[in-house]
Amino acid sequence: MSNNKPVCVSLDDFHDYAKATMPKSSYDYYALGAMDNETRKNNRKAFSKIRIRPRVMRDVSNVDTTADILGHKISMPIGIAPMAMHKLAHPDGELATAKGAAANDTLMILSTYSTYSMEDVAKAAPDGLRFLQLYVHKDRTAASDLIKRAEAAGYQGLVVTVDRPKLGRRIADAKNKFKRPSDMKMQNLKEEKNKNEDRGTFNKGMTGTVDSSLNWATDIAWLRQTTKLPIILKGILTAEDALLAVKYKVDAIIVSNHGGRQLDGAPPSIEALPEITEAVQDRIPVYLDSGIYRGSDVFKALAYGAKAVFVGRPTLWALCYDGDKGVDKMLKIIQEEFRLTMALAGCTSIDQITRDYVRRKEQYIPKL
Amino acid sequence: MSNNKPVCVSLDDFHDYAKATMPKSSYDYYALGAMDNETRKNNRKAFSKIRIRPRVMRDVSNVDTTADILGHKISMPIGIAPMAMHKLAHPDGELATAKGAAANDTLMILSTYSTYSMEDVAKAAPDGLRFLQLYVHKDRTAASDLIKRAEAAGYQGLVVTVDRPKLGRRIADAKNKFKRPSDMKMQNLKEEKNKNEDRGTFNKGMTGTVDSSLNWATDIAWLRQTTKLPIILKGILTAEDALLAVKYKVDAIIVSNHGGRQLDGAPPSIEALPEITEAVQDRIPVYLDSGIYRGSDVFKALAYGAKAVFVGRPTLWALCYDGDKGVDKMLKIIQEEFRLTMALAGCTSIDQITRDYVRRKEQYIPKL
Amino acid sequence: MSNNKPVCVSLDDFHDYAKATMPKSSYDYYALGAMDNETRKNNRKAFSKIRIRPRVMRDVSNVDTTADILGHKISMPIGIAPMAMHKLAHPDGELATAKGAAANDTLMILSTYSTYSMEDVAKAAPDGLRFLQLYVHKDRTAASDLIKRAEAAGYQGLVVTVDRPKLGRRIADAKNKFKRPSDMKMQNLKEEKNKNEDRGTFNKGMTGTVDSSLNWATDIAWLRQTTKLPIILKGILTAEDALLAVKYKVDAIIVSNHGGRQLDGAPPSIEALPEITEAVQDRIPVYLDSGIYRGSDVFKALAYGAKAVFVGRPTLWALCYDGDKGVDKMLKIIQEEFRLTMALAGCTSIDQITRDYVRRKEQYIPKL
Amino acid sequence: MSNNKPVCVSLDDFHDYAKATMPKSSYDYYALGAMDNETRKNNRKAFSKIRIRPRVMRDVSNVDTTADILGHKISMPIGIAPMAMHKLAHPDGELATAKGAAANDTLMILSTYSTYSMEDVAKAAPDGLRFLQLYVHKDRTAASDLIKRAEAAGYQGLVVTVDRPKLGRRIADAKNKFKRPSDMKMQNLKEEKNKNEDRGTFNKGMTGTVDSSLNWATDIAWLRQTTKLPIILKGILTAEDALLAVKYKVDAIIVSNHGGRQLDGAPPSIEALPEITEAVQDRIPVYLDSGIYRGSDVFKALAYGAKAVFVGRPTLWALCYDGDKGVDKMLKIIQEEFRLTMALAGCTSIDQITRDYVRRKEQYIPKL
Ligand SMILES: Cc1cc2nc3c(=O)[nH]c(=O)nc-3n(C[C@H](O)[C@H](O)[C@H](O)COP(=O)(O)O)c2cc1C
Ligand SMILES: Cc1cc2nc3c(=O)[nH]c(=O)nc-3n(C[C@H](O)[C@H](O)[C@H](O)COP(=O)(O)O)c2cc1C
Ligand SMILES: Cc1cc2nc3c(=O)[nH]c(=O)nc-3n(C[C@H](O)[C@H](O)[C@H](O)COP(=O)(O)O)c2cc1C
Ligand SMILES: Cc1cc2nc3c(=O)[nH]c(=O)nc-3n(C[C@H](O)[C@H](O)[C@H](O)COP(=O)(O)O)c2cc1C
Repeated sequence: MSNNKPVCVSLDDFHDYAKATMPKSSYDYYALGAMDNETRKNNRKAFSKIRIRPRVMRDVSNVDTTADILGHKISMPIGIAPMAMHKLAHPDGELATAKGAAANDTLMILSTYSTYSMEDVAKAAPDGLRFLQLYVHKDRTAASDLIKRAEAAGYQGLVVTVDRPKLGRRIADAKNKFKRPSDMKMQNLKEEKNKNEDRGTFNKGMTGTVDSSLNWATDIAWLRQTTKLPIILKGILTAEDALLAVKYKVDAIIVSNHGGRQLDGAPPSIEALPEITEAVQDRIPVYLDSGIYRGSDVFKALAYGAKAVFVGRPTLWALCYDGDKGVDKMLKIIQEEFRLTMALAGCTSIDQITRDYVRRKEQYIPKL
Repeated sequence: MSNNKPVCVSLDDFHDYAKATMPKSSYDYYALGAMDNETRKNNRKAFSKIRIRPRVMRDVSNVDTTADILGHKISMPIGIAPMAMHKLAHPDGELATAKGAAANDTLMILSTYSTYSMEDVAKAAPDGLRFLQLYVHKDRTAASDLIKRAEAAGYQGLVVTVDRPKLGRRIADAKNKFKRPSDMKMQNLKEEKNKNEDRGTFNKGMTGTVDSSLNWATDIAWLRQTTKLPIILKGILTAEDALLAVKYKVDAIIVSNHGGRQLDGAPPSIEALPEITEAVQDRIPVYLDSGIYRGSDVFKALAYGAKAVFVGRPTLWALCYDGDKGVDKMLKIIQEEFRLTMALAGCTSIDQITRDYVRRKEQYIPKL
Repeated sequence: MSNNKPVCVSLDDFHDYAKATMPKSSYDYYALGAMDNETRKNNRKAFSKIRIRPRVMRDVSNVDTTADILGHKISMPIGIAPMAMHKLAHPDGELATAKGAAANDTLMILSTYSTYSMEDVAKAAPDGLRFLQLYVHKDRTAASDLIKRAEAAGYQGLVVTVDRPKLGRRIADAKNKFKRPSDMKMQNLKEEKNKNEDRGTFNKGMTGTVDSSLNWATDIAWLRQTTKLPIILKGILTAEDALLAVKYKVDAIIVSNHGGRQLDGAPPSIEALPEITEAVQDRIPVYLDSGIYRGSDVFKALAYGAKAVFVGRPTLWALCYDGDKGVDKMLKIIQEEFRLTMALAGCTSIDQITRDYVRRKEQYIPKL
Repeated sequence: MSNNKPVCVSLDDFHDYAKATMPKSSYDYYALGAMDNETRKNNRKAFSKIRIRPRVMRDVSNVDTTADILGHKISMPIGIAPMAMHKLAHPDGELATAKGAAANDTLMILSTYSTYSMEDVAKAAPDGLRFLQLYVHKDRTAASDLIKRAEAAGYQGLVVTVDRPKLGRRIADAKNKFKRPSDMKMQNLKEEKNKNEDRGTFNKGMTGTVDSSLNWATDIAWLRQTTKLPIILKGILTAEDALLAVKYKVDAIIVSNHGGRQLDGAPPSIEALPEITEAVQDRIPVYLDSGIYRGSDVFKALAYGAKAVFVGRPTLWALCYDGDKGVDKMLKIIQEEFRLTMALAGCTSIDQITRDYVRRKEQYIPKL
């Protein structure tokens, strides 16, 4: 790490560095959410309104943070969420992210819109655990092509994003007339699919090549036919849809509002989680992303029933800070914060983290 | 559009332009609410506290925003609220507004206090759908006169404003000693009715020529006798009054607090809506205005039972920005935001938008 | 009024003028509350969280604001609260206040600690309605003396302040080392009682000459023996004490937290009001002060069962602004605001103002 | 006191002085809490949301603030919490604190990590009441050694801190690379235990010499065997742990979140108190610290069932301000604030302070 960079002790320190050093339009593209950024901001606010009830006088000399994700053991219940275009943050892009994740024995989910090809990413960190995030394209041959390539390259799961039938409206991108730099390609996509949407224009059709007709009735079946990989739906926010996911036998779901980048006004994912874990009743694992940036956030999500969480933007800031070493450092910080939270709350393994350990601040009031 | 104007991607962008360019006293007259502006500010805050629960994996490749208003088909459940004196914003005043509305196949409600006559407005956009907003005057001959003219000019509904028996107290107008510019006339009114109230003076009588004795017992009957046009009451905020409207057989009601310009301390219209739609039980259509400025606001109002909404001030800001082209652009933006909200929430026609799609943030808490 | 004074259209305008022109230590003494000013600030915040539910289509061409206070007719349910040392605001002090109140046919309560004698105040506005506020002194001969003088000077009621057994701790006064100017006397008190407490010192004994042993068991009886005037207790904040007031047959009570100047942390008076009016069940009239500064506040207090309210600090600011003419103007403004609130809410006399017209914002939520 | 120091009338004044005069890294070490400082800030916010319901017309000419702590009479239910390294604030360190506490007839709890030895502290104020706070060390011989020394030096209680199995993460300390100054020693500890942790490093092991395996099953028994002193557990925040404390027959507990320095996200201690006093049902005394800085806070804690409270940081600020005289002054101020609160609330002895005197602001709402 170069010497004149500030010391990072919290995930927000990576953010501050990135904000200060990245081109504004790239920073804005990464940082901001849809419309008025309400959901994005509420993601973090909602975490801060949950209290942890610490239990004391327990032997916490050994705290084990290991977790399991669809049969794969990982060092902590914290993986990396799929995000487009890591190259905007660092020339090594997704290669560096993959290395950082692998160095910490945890999962990286690679975006369809990565700026290195999934094969190159696989090669950069051959031992790392990787899932591919899939935007199902209108052209189903192209879509099944992507899946086949993922299988071949050793990806172990397929994360199908369901909250983006159309692109969310991001005001700053429109004002900045943000475009993917022309020397940066979506390396998983064929040339002809790889055209550059101008986000300054806002029209009915704006979905690019993503299939906005995706639906329960036909498409889970199509996915099952196409691959043997486990299928994880990303972007569920209601008990009703979680129950449909169980009914249609998907392997897992990710409670997510896409970091507030799609439907502004959608609930913070941590608020949506309880109705979902209650409905699902452990029939399939429930994961969560959106707003995670402290070890205590991880603890809270697990207490409400999530089996693991994914970190989005902080990964990009860490990448910008110092490539794979930045991502490595970021993951170590949040892991240690999580371990410390467990110790101070009196838990030594993640299965001990239950609902008794959390309470909304409003729930303290009736007693006062 | 002239080249040095900022790009508008949200309705607030029109506002910012208008605030920067209009004379302060005109801007204040348009922008501000009564007294401490609590109701005005709460109108928007109340929307932002409602969460939308998005449903996923639905075919949203075609989203239909069309709506119906008293038998007239409109392209979206979004019309233009009646507002006095559009000329303060742009020399083309209500003519431009009418053109913008007509270009988008939606309803404009013309104010009694328009600065172009209702006949001229009708001619400016002959195919547009128009209602006349009526302040019932003490002089009932004058009042029925207005109604007859509206019928003759092809107005299709009569919006009777009931929340202004006396003029609300607007502090900035009093401090600015705001007066209608002398070269601007209320073109629907006869010369002698057209005198200029000085808002710096505050006295018991201040109602101008509006009849503050309007009441259920006698005046609905009088209106029915006077016209065959459908009668819509604007300014209802309680279930009790909504039930009276049903009892007295008016055709529709608009839940509104007049954009916070009348009784400061009145509830945000979106908060008042549920008790009203519950009481009315679909016997008459319920519309809403006050605080609408995003497509997601429209979605929320419909989810609580409104059949359509009206946009107030953003129309004036858009008018100031670019006359009829500004209004056209404003309507297109909010329509596309609404369409996108529908798509991301999993709805393809407005009748699908029900209460299940919304929840107050407080309702998420008991589960946490 | 001198020409370079700003125009006052709201009660806060008088405040702003006073703040800009008064010596800081006098302004602070008037303006601030005890300790952290929580109660003082909450007084106003609590009003702003109450919504008024306006009823429409009622004949409000005549709105009657008259009220009754212990058998005396007043022009509005708004009187002037007792406050020490009006001379700090204006050389005419309490004389001017009395004139302003009398000019508006309403009640003034004179403080024990007035800077003109009660006899002089009576002479300044002989036709005005006046009560004397009493701090019961340890020396009961002196106390009964004050009462006899009040009877002789035509005061019609005795307001016994019960929330000041010891002086509240006001931080700014202590820091400013605030003292009554030496040329200003408490004209109702004998020379030897009139010594000047240094508020910079803070010690156990600090009660001056006020009797901190005042109690239900003995002192209501003593008051009844001493005078035939109606007895009003000022400073009740709980249902329990209100019931004791009924039991001990006082004539009326004033729900008040002394404008937040005594116990910081006490509830806003408008929050305490409902439990009190519910308990009292109209057996004696309940009045309220603390935080009233808009006509809509008066409406809200009446809706929760108060029969009248008293305005404190705004009187002092108005006095500073323009002596008796300032007070007159201030009272006219709040009366007209109250009248307008009544009209816009659909009420034409104060007995129509009931609980149905108000609702806490939290009560709207369950329907959303 | 030197003449150019500002006058202190509230406990926050000592803080302001210390903030302005101490080296930043020492100030930060004292002032800040863990992670995002949420719990630290909520400690005070939570107090400010509690209303006191004052009772009037009671004889409060004599207000008795005396209290009892495990059989020892103290002048007020307010003692001094254990805090490390008082020498950072003033060269006289814990000697001065002990003198200030003794001068006010109240309890001081000395930290294991004091910068004067417990024997020297005992000698500095021989008549004062003192408990020793114990961090149980891995090396139990060293631990029982400390206990024996405390007994020999006349300490009357053992406060075992249970919320610090690992050191909380304090961001500012890490950024400041805060270290104990090399000329300052933990005088209770043997040389070899006295090594200096660099808080800039953050690693799994960071517990120093404190035993993170402390647990109910074995360690209460060990403590009982080791000493006859009463055992007080400090750092309980749940009813469950309070019941375990009763079950394991400890003598008292302190509800505390360590001033927000350990688990960020833990509830404010005043919020956690009611569930604990309800569960404990007076079987053992419950004390409280964290966020106390006004006499009214003490009143609120007692109303919810605490028998006494402890003041943390304000002690350090007062020490910095003026050594033992500063601590003396600070204690006198909060005692007088507490006495005044009692008087204004209508209580003359601390056993009269019950739950009827307090109410959360939310509890006022249903009546509105
Ligand atoms: C810049 C950026 C690009 C993203 N691209 C994708 C994507 O291509 N596919 C996807 O499923 N989610 C995408 N997401 C959403 C993330 O997977 C994740 O849901 C979100 O970032 C979590 O919120 P957080 O950033 O607050 O941690 C993207 C998020 C960001 C910030
Ligand atoms: C400048 C202005 C003038 C208005 N004039 C009228 C009017 O003449 N008649 C009427 O019924 N409502 C009038 N209104 C109220 C609007 O019809 C509508 O209720 C309100 O603007 C909706 O709130 P919004 O501005 O937040 O959208 C006026 C509003 C504004 C801002
Ligand atoms: C400067 C000042 C002096 C006061 N003096 C007295 C007094 O002598 N006797 C009394 O009963 N109340 C006194 N009060 C309290 C008022 O009667 C009244 O309760 C309070 O001002 C109402 O709150 P408001 O100022 O928010 O309207 C005083 C208040 C102020 C601001
Ligand atoms: C600088 C500092 C050092 C502390 N050291 C200790 C300690 O050595 N042992 C302990 O049990 N608590 C320690 N505490 C916690 C205090 O005992 C107490 O719980 C906390 O300060 C109360 O919160 P307050 O500062 O808001 O009053 C320390 C607190 C501070 C501020």
